[in-house]
Amino acid sequence: MRALVYHGPGQKAWEEVPDPVITDPGDAVVRVDAVTICGTDLHILKGDVPEVTGGRILGHEAVGTVEEVGPGVRTVEPGDQVLVSCITACGTCRFCRETRYGQCLGGGGWTLGHTIDGTQAEYVRVPFADTSTHPVPAGAAPQDVLMLADILPTGYEVGVLNGGVRPGDVVAVVGAGPIGLSAVMGARLFSPSHVIAVDLADGRLDAARAFGADVTVNNSREDPLPVVREMTGGLGADVTIEAVGVPDAFESAVALARPGGRIANIGVHGRPAALHLEEQWIRDITITTGLVDTFSTPTLMRLITGGQLDAGRFVTHHFALEEFPQAYEVFADAAGTGALKVVLTR
Amino acid sequence: MRALVYHGPGQKAWEEVPDPVITDPGDAVVRVDAVTICGTDLHILKGDVPEVTGGRILGHEAVGTVEEVGPGVRTVEPGDQVLVSCITACGTCRFCRETRYGQCLGGGGWTLGHTIDGTQAEYVRVPFADTSTHPVPAGAAPQDVLMLADILPTGYEVGVLNGGVRPGDVVAVVGAGPIGLSAVMGARLFSPSHVIAVDLADGRLDAARAFGADVTVNNSREDPLPVVREMTGGLGADVTIEAVGVPDAFESAVALARPGGRIANIGVHGRPAALHLEEQWIRDITITTGLVDTFSTPTLMRLITGGQLDAGRFVTHHFALEEFPQAYEVFADAAGTGALKVVLTR
Repeated sequence: MRALVYHGPGQKAWEEVPDPVITDPGDAVVRVDAVTICGTDLHILKGDVPEVTGGRILGHEAVGTVEEVGPGVRTVEPGDQVLVSCITACGTCRFCRETRYGQCLGGGGWTLGHTIDGTQAEYVRVPFADTSTHPVPAGAAPQDVLMLADILPTGYEVGVLNGGVRPGDVVAVVGAGPIGLSAVMGARLFSPSHVIAVDLADGRLDAARAFGADVTVNNSREDPLPVVREMTGGLGADVTIEAVGVPDAFESAVALARPGGRIANIGVHGRPAALHLEEQWIRDITITTGLVDTFSTPTLMRLITGGQLDAGRFVTHHFALEEFPQAYEVFADAAGTGALKVVLTR
Repeated sequence: MRALVYHGPGQKAWEEVPDPVITDPGDAVVRVDAVTICGTDLHILKGDVPEVTGGRILGHEAVGTVEEVGPGVRTVEPGDQVLVSCITACGTCRFCRETRYGQCLGGGGWTLGHTIDGTQAEYVRVPFADTSTHPVPAGAAPQDVLMLADILPTGYEVGVLNGGVRPGDVVAVVGAGPIGLSAVMGARLFSPSHVIAVDLADGRLDAARAFGADVTVNNSREDPLPVVREMTGGLGADVTIEAVGVPDAFESAVALARPGGRIANIGVHGRPAALHLEEQWIRDITITTGLVDTFSTPTLMRLITGGQLDAGRFVTHHFALEEFPQAYEVFADAAGTGALKVVLTR
């Protein structure tokens, strides 16, 4: 088969590789019907995620059709259309039993396109198929469901739920890429009073308005701090969400929060940030980090199929699988192309 | 009267100053019967708290007898013996109504010995006397109650409660000064499986054992990380509590936490710390900072009077008020003198 293979920082190729095979009784091999590219893949290509080594097939998001299952698989069978989630879960370890699937100690967690071969391929081996896939509901559009493989639960769990967004809150989202937009969309479910999106690109801020932000700040031209302070009686935002993954964005997210506020980091970081404890020790802040657990995927699936979340609006570009190199170019140049999520289909 | 006056970094004197007077209808003037010195006072003298300006009377902890009250005071009257808490609270602002008295927007918060004159004096003006003092129960020892002015609620609220200590947890406390010891004592109330104290001074580690730590690490000689990892199946502590206020201690507290762990910062910091997001973004950690609110003071008072907390064991040295300079010397040289809390009485 062909797959998108990482060959070290800055290097990748769509090339011929061996077909995946069942290696564990809990595995499934899934034919990839639709797949996308994540900002995390760009972080990997920048070298921010050094445990990804050369030769790895990237990708941790797909909708596909089960081809074959191991003898231990109980709930998934060949022919089923499934969501392949970014998180695989052994289902039995301490952290899985606490719903912290992202921290799975039994060989799951974020493995696909990270520590094992991923979904940017014609076929993918999915470990722990029973606890790592979700059935695609009849009538659901695969490209909508595909947004549940990572960005929707990530924005919701690691941003909105970790941030503890509540009705009436002022929420500031730093970074209006797909993850930030997912956080904007998720925050809206909790009836905040304002959602402020901060980004360097006007196109992304336009998207943020379409996703539910009522205030936008282009921080290449304007400091968001006085804007947020002015809206909050001088205090700062109740919740800030970092959705970029660079020190400046994190430090800005901390500065924008009010006393007693919560800062939810979603970004994938490659460097330390400065935490200004000389200002913050006294301010009762809470900072969270996290990898998505995907415990919310079934809930978000219901919100999509019930029409309460419009996942389709993330998808700006379509490609065929063999156009992976062009899809990466379009996605990486989001400021120029306006790309949010690109979908590649068989 | 005489008082301990701050004159800029490194400079202080026990000197004659004007007596305090009622300036607001909610004020009380309290004769100081017993007062102590806080690690925060040492941070002020190091210049870590620049909003404290020259001429300020230090101190935010006292037990005293009410001399005079303003016409708006309803529940406190001359002759009452009261605890003067480090936190004064207007009682009516948004944050006071949310029990975040430390963040009071109405002129309270940590004001005594910070933005107004404090308790290291023969008399002190206490604003918002109704909501900023607590009656001393009949039969309670003033020096025990004095520990409730700051260290006991600080260790409990900002360390133990923010850290979310639960039964069975492994708790690591970095820094075994009075605040760290208070956190050790408070953590024990929640039946953790282990409390590990980390400090540079053997004397403080001996104290930590007496206060309830079952494992101690002198981090001048031994790296606590492998010790904690070995005790936790390689994962790290469920909760870590920073009770020093320097970057190294904070960074150590973060490193010692397990995936999904909580890091509660209590320390008063004068400099930024590095937050290693390149390691921590994926580990589901929660970091909290905070100033004590003192909402727990009545509860802790019951635990003291009921014999469940032994506050007296903090007190290692006694002085008369006019011995304030010597008391500071003994307290600042805790490693040499073994001082935990010094109590000065009239």
